[in-house]
Amino acid sequence: MDTDVSRSPSWQKLAALARQPYDLRQDRGLGASRRIDKMVCKSAGLRLLYATQRIDDEVLIAFQQFADEHRLVERYRQMRRGAVINRIEGWASENRQVLHTSCRDIFSTTPAEPQSAAQARSEFDKLRAFLAEIDDGRIRGSNGDSLTTMINVGIGGSDLGPRAIYEALKAFRRKDRNVHFIANVDPDDAAEVLASVDLARALVIVVSKSGTTLETLANEELVRAAFLAAGLDPGRHFVAVTGDGSPMDDPARYLRTFLMFDYIGGRYSVTSMVGCVTLGFALGVEQLSAFLSGAHEMDELAENPRVADNMPLLLALLGLWNHNFLGYPTLAILPYSQSLHRFPAHLQQCDMESNGKSVTTAGTRVTVQTGPIIWGEPGTNGQHAFYQLLHQGTEIVPAEFIGFVSSQYDHDIAIDGTTSQQKLLANLLAQALALATGQEDENPNRCFAGNRPSSVIIGKRLDPLHMGRLLALYEAKIVFQGFAWHINSFDQEGVQLGKVLAGRFLACMKAGLKDDPSVENQMLVALDK
Amino acid sequence: MDTDVSRSPSWQKLAALARQPYDLRQDRGLGASRRIDKMVCKSAGLRLLYATQRIDDEVLIAFQQFADEHRLVERYRQMRRGAVINRIEGWASENRQVLHTSCRDIFSTTPAEPQSAAQARSEFDKLRAFLAEIDDGRIRGSNGDSLTTMINVGIGGSDLGPRAIYEALKAFRRKDRNVHFIANVDPDDAAEVLASVDLARALVIVVSKSGTTLETLANEELVRAAFLAAGLDPGRHFVAVTGDGSPMDDPARYLRTFLMFDYIGGRYSVTSMVGCVTLGFALGVEQLSAFLSGAHEMDELAENPRVADNMPLLLALLGLWNHNFLGYPTLAILPYSQSLHRFPAHLQQCDMESNGKSVTTAGTRVTVQTGPIIWGEPGTNGQHAFYQLLHQGTEIVPAEFIGFVSSQYDHDIAIDGTTSQQKLLANLLAQALALATGQEDENPNRCFAGNRPSSVIIGKRLDPLHMGRLLALYEAKIVFQGFAWHINSFDQEGVQLGKVLAGRFLACMKAGLKDDPSVENQMLVALDK
Repeated sequence: MDTDVSRSPSWQKLAALARQPYDLRQDRGLGASRRIDKMVCKSAGLRLLYATQRIDDEVLIAFQQFADEHRLVERYRQMRRGAVINRIEGWASENRQVLHTSCRDIFSTTPAEPQSAAQARSEFDKLRAFLAEIDDGRIRGSNGDSLTTMINVGIGGSDLGPRAIYEALKAFRRKDRNVHFIANVDPDDAAEVLASVDLARALVIVVSKSGTTLETLANEELVRAAFLAAGLDPGRHFVAVTGDGSPMDDPARYLRTFLMFDYIGGRYSVTSMVGCVTLGFALGVEQLSAFLSGAHEMDELAENPRVADNMPLLLALLGLWNHNFLGYPTLAILPYSQSLHRFPAHLQQCDMESNGKSVTTAGTRVTVQTGPIIWGEPGTNGQHAFYQLLHQGTEIVPAEFIGFVSSQYDHDIAIDGTTSQQKLLANLLAQALALATGQEDENPNRCFAGNRPSSVIIGKRLDPLHMGRLLALYEAKIVFQGFAWHINSFDQEGVQLGKVLAGRFLACMKAGLKDDPSVENQMLVALDK
Repeated sequence: MDTDVSRSPSWQKLAALARQPYDLRQDRGLGASRRIDKMVCKSAGLRLLYATQRIDDEVLIAFQQFADEHRLVERYRQMRRGAVINRIEGWASENRQVLHTSCRDIFSTTPAEPQSAAQARSEFDKLRAFLAEIDDGRIRGSNGDSLTTMINVGIGGSDLGPRAIYEALKAFRRKDRNVHFIANVDPDDAAEVLASVDLARALVIVVSKSGTTLETLANEELVRAAFLAAGLDPGRHFVAVTGDGSPMDDPARYLRTFLMFDYIGGRYSVTSMVGCVTLGFALGVEQLSAFLSGAHEMDELAENPRVADNMPLLLALLGLWNHNFLGYPTLAILPYSQSLHRFPAHLQQCDMESNGKSVTTAGTRVTVQTGPIIWGEPGTNGQHAFYQLLHQGTEIVPAEFIGFVSSQYDHDIAIDGTTSQQKLLANLLAQALALATGQEDENPNRCFAGNRPSSVIIGKRLDPLHMGRLLALYEAKIVFQGFAWHINSFDQEGVQLGKVLAGRFLACMKAGLKDDPSVENQMLVALDK
């Protein structure tokens, strides 16, 4: 297949259509006959309203042509069945399968890829047994205390995903369980957590696929030192999640080791043992299973070849439309749910590390813009912060609003005849509408240009099942966009140079400042004098 | 003065220079003679290294011409002395002074604007007396317990700023004190905090300048109900921070009321009573004073007419260079300090709500791009998340790195001969260098284009004094940029339309779904069926 997407007929058709995108402004397009009603996609308990995007039926037809021409769904099906797609043709690359979807393909007797699904099931069973031993007291801390707190030591994919989902589902956690996270090599990060935890009751999970992540090993040492200082045996408290055969796969140092596999990328690893150990400990196995089954359900629906019925694919193509054809460089993820406060940060990683690329899978330079900048904060907080720019700034920001009909805790209050949850939802819808329609006014400072596109994703209630669906929705969206741009969404060569240069700065620091013309030494001198 | 900045000679000179920006790539520009050494600005205990920006001496000369031509420092001086600059010429507008700088101008006998400084001092003295009464037990909870926890109820400027600074300075808080925040109208936000706090020991501070903020009033009711349910008298636990004469300025309902004034915008209100009550409670008056004096110190330095010696002004003009002349739509704020994890969110508000505008102070449409999109997360975490895109993506992201030589807690560990704090700093510098120089490689997937600009801001240690300086640095930077674009950085008309439409959705929800052609009803129906 030609990896220069800009030459494809459907790309060129979309480019032509984008010269006159649909007009959403007040008293013009949005209220048009049955538009709102028709532009709804329902999948796995979620709804996507996209009437507030600048598209019409012609664009939807071109989306389908694009998806077909670039075989997006077929390639997704191949991914789930074990194709080696983490590679760059003709160059040294990771050369691996991409099978994070297998982590949740543990409920059927006919999984898409049997071998990886069997490995996932085996780790899941190991975890279930381990959690049962904690529950019934066969596993206890080295002072004999029951283990009620977990400290998750990891960074990047071993932190953002588990943390975002834990925060999202805190309302469902077991009353006697809580989790803390240490990620940053900043020693203050660990210091603050260690100051607030009873180590005698703490289980520490150290997560690193390679077993060599600098920050994680440094933090593990800090935490081990704290255990020793408290007279506790780390061997009774530390659990590892790491790759098969990594330096951390060492029974002498860990109470238990859970495995992840080379076909699971860090940023896609929430449903592997990377997320499951922490979530299983906090939520219990039943809620964890609901979360995984929600993700699996969405994975299956992502195989639907019809764009209008395939929510992740539709979301991916709406993203391309705004980014490549209307020219907007960023995407705001705006959850109207406080518990999703770290979900944008997780997606920022998952999306930007996957699709922030400049080389196609054929090793040629891309000719179009690839992944956008992803950012966002929960509404309604954001309304009182950066929404001014969304409505009246000179930068146009496409948005994805995420909301729920019911709250998690169900502790609500009615004021002026509506509950807080209703106010939350009303605000979400009002923002999408205001951005789309705008408003004219005699006072130039009270004008709203309108035609600012957004999508609205709504679920019934943010529970483990819906969280799994939402997570898998975005994972599949990101994969589809990578396929569309013909890039490798599964490597991260862009992080290497910084690592090398950090090593040089550390060498300079150890040597002490001197009369050395290297750029590194010059920068250190500039800080010092 | 002509408010169409694009017509000014210095703007046009900058545009001409931007056609060939300085080349930073490896073995080319960055290591050039004395560049790194010369391009350092020192102000109030902070250093700004800007050798990794795509500028040279000619651009710096043009910066000075621009600053002079647009009288940036003179207008800043007028702001601090009470000029009515929150206005749009010829149109209804807030028509107010802008005097957040007076909140910290309480240390000298000759403040820049005496009346507002006297008001600030009076509120500060009231706060000091109040905190002393809590300390010595004259003020206690309604069960007689001492008050050790604060719940901050506010949103936007009444939440993000106080929260960001509290998180940043947690290491310095009194051992017996802690603070929780409730902002979101999402009822789960309040439910989670209320589930974790001993209300008998809690002081609730309700913050709303207008006294009518929907989210804050709803959350106040939720929290009051919880106090009543616990048999506690809210009148003994609730404190207000609000505008003089607002509906919340009501002694019958609050233990004490602290005032803010109409010349202080919410997003600039951290050093007013909006932030001071919370920070004073948590840190004590002495640390609070250090924080305020640090901010004041930077305010004074921002009056230096020489761009190269005026850190906020230089940072502002570097921002213009990247945004308007090199064409980059966003700015990443990347603190290498975990405790600054909410500082980017605060700046996101302060900057985007201030400068996300399309109309000049003369009421005409702007002809240039105004405020960029601000986003960011702490390093080194970000390195394992979105930095892939920063290095190899097709979107170019200018960055501001913020770091410190020493840690806050000083609980550190040496591994391989360097401490975690050294590793943190080495990583920060390595990223700035890698983005600037790039790297060539035979393997196209291992090439780094380079010439990606950044600044490095370094302080000795993140303590209250340095935090005050850093906050004021950014506040002044944002104000200077607003002056440069000739926009009003102090209003927020862009939030109004969403409020109106939210009211319409709520009215539809109360009425129940029906056969109503309004767009609001159509959207609600689309969610429901």
